[in-house]
Amino acid sequence: MASSTVSFIIIIIITTVLLPSLSSQLSDLFPSNNPPPFLGKHSHPIKQPNHHQQYRYETRYFSQPLDHFSFLDLPRFRQRYLINTEHWVGPSRSGPIFLYCGNEGDIEWFAVNTGFVWDIAPRFGAMILFPEHRYYGDSMPFGSKEEAYRNATTLSYLTAEQALADFAVLITDLKKNLSAEGCPVVLFGGSYGGMLAAWMRLKYPHVAVGALASSAPILQFEDIVPPETFYNIVSNSFKRESSSCFDTIKNSWNALRSEGQKEDGLKQLSKTFHLCRELTSVQGLSDWLDSAYSYLAMVNYPYPSNFLMPLPGHPIREVCKRIDGSPAGSSILERIFNGVSVYYNYTGEVDCFQLDDDPHGMDGWNWQACTEMVMPMSSDQNTSMFPAYDWDYSAFREGCQRDFQVTPRPRWITTEFGGHDIEHVLKSFGSNIIFSNGLLDPWSGGSVLKNISETIIALITKEGAHHIDLRASSTEDPDWLVEQRATEIKLIQGWIYNYSKKMKATFEI
Amino acid sequence: MASSTVSFIIIIIITTVLLPSLSSQLSDLFPSNNPPPFLGKHSHPIKQPNHHQQYRYETRYFSQPLDHFSFLDLPRFRQRYLINTEHWVGPSRSGPIFLYCGNEGDIEWFAVNTGFVWDIAPRFGAMILFPEHRYYGDSMPFGSKEEAYRNATTLSYLTAEQALADFAVLITDLKKNLSAEGCPVVLFGGSYGGMLAAWMRLKYPHVAVGALASSAPILQFEDIVPPETFYNIVSNSFKRESSSCFDTIKNSWNALRSEGQKEDGLKQLSKTFHLCRELTSVQGLSDWLDSAYSYLAMVNYPYPSNFLMPLPGHPIREVCKRIDGSPAGSSILERIFNGVSVYYNYTGEVDCFQLDDDPHGMDGWNWQACTEMVMPMSSDQNTSMFPAYDWDYSAFREGCQRDFQVTPRPRWITTEFGGHDIEHVLKSFGSNIIFSNGLLDPWSGGSVLKNISETIIALITKEGAHHIDLRASSTEDPDWLVEQRATEIKLIQGWIYNYSKKMKATFEI
Repeated sequence: MASSTVSFIIIIIITTVLLPSLSSQLSDLFPSNNPPPFLGKHSHPIKQPNHHQQYRYETRYFSQPLDHFSFLDLPRFRQRYLINTEHWVGPSRSGPIFLYCGNEGDIEWFAVNTGFVWDIAPRFGAMILFPEHRYYGDSMPFGSKEEAYRNATTLSYLTAEQALADFAVLITDLKKNLSAEGCPVVLFGGSYGGMLAAWMRLKYPHVAVGALASSAPILQFEDIVPPETFYNIVSNSFKRESSSCFDTIKNSWNALRSEGQKEDGLKQLSKTFHLCRELTSVQGLSDWLDSAYSYLAMVNYPYPSNFLMPLPGHPIREVCKRIDGSPAGSSILERIFNGVSVYYNYTGEVDCFQLDDDPHGMDGWNWQACTEMVMPMSSDQNTSMFPAYDWDYSAFREGCQRDFQVTPRPRWITTEFGGHDIEHVLKSFGSNIIFSNGLLDPWSGGSVLKNISETIIALITKEGAHHIDLRASSTEDPDWLVEQRATEIKLIQGWIYNYSKKMKATFEI
Repeated sequence: MASSTVSFIIIIIITTVLLPSLSSQLSDLFPSNNPPPFLGKHSHPIKQPNHHQQYRYETRYFSQPLDHFSFLDLPRFRQRYLINTEHWVGPSRSGPIFLYCGNEGDIEWFAVNTGFVWDIAPRFGAMILFPEHRYYGDSMPFGSKEEAYRNATTLSYLTAEQALADFAVLITDLKKNLSAEGCPVVLFGGSYGGMLAAWMRLKYPHVAVGALASSAPILQFEDIVPPETFYNIVSNSFKRESSSCFDTIKNSWNALRSEGQKEDGLKQLSKTFHLCRELTSVQGLSDWLDSAYSYLAMVNYPYPSNFLMPLPGHPIREVCKRIDGSPAGSSILERIFNGVSVYYNYTGEVDCFQLDDDPHGMDGWNWQACTEMVMPMSSDQNTSMFPAYDWDYSAFREGCQRDFQVTPRPRWITTEFGGHDIEHVLKSFGSNIIFSNGLLDPWSGGSVLKNISETIIALITKEGAHHIDLRASSTEDPDWLVEQRATEIKLIQGWIYNYSKKMKATFEI
């Protein structure tokens, strides 16, 4: 699974950005030289094989400059994009173009998991475009993933600014070729893709008329939000279900440490957690556990889903039920095992668990986290169920230098895209962005949760999790989700209406 | 003079962007393999030696990444900046920071020639900053101009986006070091510097609260304005003074060609134009002439100036007086010589004229024109006094490939910064930009001449020339110029006032 490039997602953000700190925090308990865990290691996203061909698209490729911001004589690369024009009403009727800002993974996976765009395109007469993010999926510079990921030099063009420029160049060219310059582009994106959508609307207002940025933690940088935010939200998602569940998890780290230090402790732990191979340290196990908790908080949807793993509705509730409801006399670690089995083995098909211990896998988001996407994460002694940990930038930097031979630029993202004091900066600047967030999602704390202006809107759902609004509608959708999507549709309609009105006014002059 | 790196300016834009087309147009008349003329060749800007120390500043250096948008392991470079804090009221009183966006030349020259900023800083209690543009003046990557300009690889990071990022990184760092994060930054810039100021406000609204973009032809790209615009304005500036003057110039190109084709014609031309060395083709001479006309239109100020050359007030009027008033019996070329002597020899100190014929000089703006800053220029058979010429992108591209081994990206600037349909795009997006233009300035035709919104304002003066508003005030200023500057001050005060109000509101919450 870990070798499948198909199946990251948002999650990816979590594994590297926050898990590094978890590793480090565990390092406090268990001195360890482990580097940060890497991408999606403990998520096993299901690639829906698009069985019923419910989403039809054509796959195309576009030749992109590798560096938009220098004129080095570099080889171009082929950017993949998916396109569907069957509902598009065309240039003559200014048919909108819905562009999903591909994030850190295979674009087909995002296309299949962004049902909202497919659901609403017909009523808008919209073209659908899913351009892939460079260095992911099938959009590899230098001809192959092996070459693209060879070293820091080949990876050096994997940045958000380059990806945004890719989108801008692609859509500009496409519109020109279709004589569709007058067709409004609406941006969509979830998680890192949502960050890209918001930033794209801010940096390229001439390219797109608006952006729906779902679960986009654009403020999770530097000191804009407290570094404890993410883990506090994860922890609260467990506490709200059961405070004893929260306590059990909080106490389990010490139990883990004690067990690991015993003679035959690792052997015993491997047995307790049904691992296929015996542990060589507790590090891999603790990573495996904290990944599960964080992912569970992200996909804490009110209905069964198989977004990352096959899960029941309200999966954290289910985890806590198992932790709290383990047979009398169960040890703390047995309870934990019963709990996380909801995440790793809800279908009951797994006999033993593989912990992928290879810490040297080079993956795209790891690179991004070690260059631009430096998101400080701490774990508060009192409010977090994770071991206490203070963000340690120096240790983080050293890890990046060791693993990638690259030094992060931790202040670059806020210099380039802003973030500090965003409310005032954008009050009379920018327009037409929706920041949608579910408050159960641990990433929501790093996003925009208050309206900034009449057209830069925060849509919050108390019971929502990670960009649930972008998923296909279903009969199980709770009312608040139906309402949220209806509001989004109305706002998007407003953007397009205003755009058409302006265009008409031009023609009438 | 051509070897002085000190003394370009805005003009620089003219020499390369438009002169290439002139060369080509002359190539129609005189088949020639000459590459485009290069920077400031026929301008002899006076470097005011800042005699009286009227502008005091400290010179500092800041270490910048060579490529902000990749993580290649490249050597950093030292960006020079000038700073004056004597009037700054400091962070406690949110003293503003006036930042001039250095353009294609030595920053000291811009500092000395941007008196407006120095004039108004005291009343604003403002800090003054003049950061230099990379690859100009003393801000050379790779340690020296020789190294920086060695080839297309070393030059490849000379782009507007990198320069904007330099400004953003510098000011962000400086403010942090001074605990001046709460101090509003106001951007200033003229010509290409004005383009940078406008783009910076659009791309980095979190960095600066507003921009005064003087004579900034941000629309002089692709097909946004007709390619004949520039030469038509130059031509009209002559026609409005005297239609016979216009006709004489218009007819002179044929006379030049005929003369050049005669036996001993080049010798005779060299004599007529008092050249120090005998011509080897008419190309150099025609370049020399058309440069004079275009520069004259740019600095067609109502009072004597020595911005580029020592000139009388209304210099075009003076040129036409000499052309029209040449002794009876003067040949057309003798009249032309008398006219352009106003530009090249107003003080009468020059005995013979040097035409710099070296067509292979590598200069920064030539590179920029051959990469991003592709500004199509044509000359209309009926309305222009220059030889008719249709913009020929293929020929331009070939010239760039030959001279710099680089292929231009003619659509990149509008993809990155917009420009098409700017009025509608920015109507509800962006704020606090002044586009100031004098209609005598041939660059005004490529700038923004209509208000876009309540806070994106076009200030036009009928009698103004190239960013005259940025020059120091003087007793000779006409009323319209005094008024224009007063309006600019008022608008800037408004930006700062609104910013402070917002900040205060935050503190009071």
